[in-house]
Amino acid sequence: MQQTSPLLTDLYQINMIQAYLDHGDTETAVFELFVRTLPPRRGFLMAAGLEQALDFLENLRFSAAEIAWLKNTGRFGPNLLNYLRDFRFTGDVHAMPEGTVFFANEPMLRLTAPLPQAQFVESRLINILHYQILIAAKAARSVLAAPNKLLVDFGMRRAHGAEAGLMAARASYIAGFAGTATVLAGKQFGIPLFGTMAHSFIEAFSDETEAFETFARTRPDNVVLLLDTYDTEAAARKVVALAPRLTETGIAIRGVRLDSGDLIALSKSVRAILDAGGLKETTIFVSGGLDEDSLVAFARAGAPIDGIGIGTSLTTSADVPSIDCVYKLQEYAGLPRRKRSENKSTWPGRKQVWRRYDTDGRMASDLLTLADHEKAGAPLIHPVMLGGQRLQPAPSLDDIRRRAKRELECLPEALRKLTPGATYKVEVADALVELAADVDRRLERSSPSI
Amino acid sequence: MQQTSPLLTDLYQINMIQAYLDHGDTETAVFELFVRTLPPRRGFLMAAGLEQALDFLENLRFSAAEIAWLKNTGRFGPNLLNYLRDFRFTGDVHAMPEGTVFFANEPMLRLTAPLPQAQFVESRLINILHYQILIAAKAARSVLAAPNKLLVDFGMRRAHGAEAGLMAARASYIAGFAGTATVLAGKQFGIPLFGTMAHSFIEAFSDETEAFETFARTRPDNVVLLLDTYDTEAAARKVVALAPRLTETGIAIRGVRLDSGDLIALSKSVRAILDAGGLKETTIFVSGGLDEDSLVAFARAGAPIDGIGIGTSLTTSADVPSIDCVYKLQEYAGLPRRKRSENKSTWPGRKQVWRRYDTDGRMASDLLTLADHEKAGAPLIHPVMLGGQRLQPAPSLDDIRRRAKRELECLPEALRKLTPGATYKVEVADALVELAADVDRRLERSSPSI
Repeated sequence: MQQTSPLLTDLYQINMIQAYLDHGDTETAVFELFVRTLPPRRGFLMAAGLEQALDFLENLRFSAAEIAWLKNTGRFGPNLLNYLRDFRFTGDVHAMPEGTVFFANEPMLRLTAPLPQAQFVESRLINILHYQILIAAKAARSVLAAPNKLLVDFGMRRAHGAEAGLMAARASYIAGFAGTATVLAGKQFGIPLFGTMAHSFIEAFSDETEAFETFARTRPDNVVLLLDTYDTEAAARKVVALAPRLTETGIAIRGVRLDSGDLIALSKSVRAILDAGGLKETTIFVSGGLDEDSLVAFARAGAPIDGIGIGTSLTTSADVPSIDCVYKLQEYAGLPRRKRSENKSTWPGRKQVWRRYDTDGRMASDLLTLADHEKAGAPLIHPVMLGGQRLQPAPSLDDIRRRAKRELECLPEALRKLTPGATYKVEVADALVELAADVDRRLERSSPSI
Repeated sequence: MQQTSPLLTDLYQINMIQAYLDHGDTETAVFELFVRTLPPRRGFLMAAGLEQALDFLENLRFSAAEIAWLKNTGRFGPNLLNYLRDFRFTGDVHAMPEGTVFFANEPMLRLTAPLPQAQFVESRLINILHYQILIAAKAARSVLAAPNKLLVDFGMRRAHGAEAGLMAARASYIAGFAGTATVLAGKQFGIPLFGTMAHSFIEAFSDETEAFETFARTRPDNVVLLLDTYDTEAAARKVVALAPRLTETGIAIRGVRLDSGDLIALSKSVRAILDAGGLKETTIFVSGGLDEDSLVAFARAGAPIDGIGIGTSLTTSADVPSIDCVYKLQEYAGLPRRKRSENKSTWPGRKQVWRRYDTDGRMASDLLTLADHEKAGAPLIHPVMLGGQRLQPAPSLDDIRRRAKRELECLPEALRKLTPGATYKVEVADALVELAADVDRRLERSSPSI
């Protein structure tokens, strides 16, 4: 990922830093990033994007040109401009490892830093983490719906911009996709690449068989032929007719792709044509406006489909294009803080999540506690950055992917369905409830309603 | 916008170029970008993103490191690697100016170039244009629903990644928003910036009034105070009590912001408190999970709201997070081409759209014709790049915005509603229908079904 300008932030962040500096409010603040409520049809979420978030914090610098531009707006004082000129993130980050399953109100990340720093990073930090969490959770649904199919991200073109296209490949690979069509994701993250041909390729030839043969001779190791440009079943028969000529030169037709029409019916008729033609090893790959519900329909119908390209529905998380992911002040200058806005109130203080498992290894329930209260189970939040320095080298993407796989295996059965059959239990420790009441009493004392 | 790597593409594009080069298929291809069908609740779309698309074409280069990486994959031949090493886009682009209203099946952009070039740019070209078209169309709905309100883009944090956050500000400004909170959009595009404070700012102080006063003294030119951290009406009374002290030092409270609760009821009660306290000039700005339907509800209820921050629903186009935007081969080597896949067939050839207007200046109907057929009305598609060179300097964003405003004024009344009351008439010229039939006959002759 290219480092983006630190000015990719909301104006109010800079306004607030100006006020904090003017007023001397630079003590330690603790913010937590969490999701307030799970969206419809999501029984869980999955932590993702932490590496990019840490990259952002580590590399946050203002260029001379950016400082000059801020100065020219006439909005900001010299104290702010000097502060930003030397800006370095020097805080601590505690977080759930990428690939961890989490639920509403559980902090996926806690950031501890001088207030102006902690405040400034809010907008881009949410921007980075929200999207990968969204896509990992969406991709996990397909992985659960079709555990034995080859799933490939095809959605860069209608993802919302460049970064979304790239990061969707990363987040869906974490959740268990086999790979992506997006070449840059292969270069940048080592994610396996998949891809064959478009309809325009077929159309550029005057004869469909000639297009197939040309492609096969160019890419003999990866012959997957697109059948639906004109007439899918006719194209399947052309593939059967072509196969002996290719076999003579040692080329096997690895697969065919269907991108339109009734994919269940066509996969069956194409399978029959291929089998009758001796191409039993040739796989069927489908694409074209598919999502996790399509995967369930394919399985129910017994469609002989081996792999699925999932595009727009994945990279836009089409049924749920955003989640209520927020970053909230929980402590400042040693005192726990709390927002009490209607339906948006928060649990104050630094928190930890303890996860308990059933005897069969499935997740049983989580307990939200204060960070320094030891409880039964496994703590989910760990230090990853202290004083602006990463504690460990980044885990490999395959390690993250293995973690995600284990997490999905440990999900309660009811949460593995596309429409979750239960709500996972997240308890709030008594100490936290009491702390919230303490904060409320303090607020009432210091600032009674007029 | 930062130039992204040319490897932000789909693998199949590079596979196809390899096959085109191997087979000598490098004649001129014509592709058109259009939307197959309008999504639910969209009566029209708006062209946007052309400048970024032309930037992409003009600056498309492969670095030595990118070529080396491609070579190391072992997938590609030396002819392809040499071709990409010297890659420059040398083609022509015809397009609708940004801000133009358009409809299903109307090419918003036509690209003419040697086949490997024209093929290669597909994925990123759609990625750039799809998102800005999507957001301009979404933003236009709010502009039509609340023509006299101050509308501000607040949605960078939950936009899908960095580029979406930035480009949503641009596309919504084109459609008629007053500005954005995203600072980088101010620096990069000169878009007006808006922003005040977050709840965390209020919470960092032990006293709400002290927070208000600190902010007002730091930003005396732009005092907009956030009221809903604890109790909105109590906070409004604190603002009234604070006002005289600020007035003494020449500071006016320009506005208040409400971000939660029943915004219609609260705007009325806060208006009453402010008016009774002599703050009749202080405006009310609202935010928090709003969309164009909220704007209609505010207007119906006569809510005394002056401005609205629209965030996630705008930048994710929440109700319609993608549109069926495609880029299809229409001609190759002088011959018109056509895809006939089920429900995805296309009109062949280079096309033009002619728009006719009623006597009152409203759009009446469009006619889709072959590009060289002169018709009545105004042609919408114009040359913007020839031989890889831009023909004109980029229009200013404010010029584009003025065009969009005129276009929205010319919309038929039925299309100005959030749920469109009619479908706009787009006729297909007889010559185009005949050409499609010609192509079909040619395909049948050259490649009969087996």
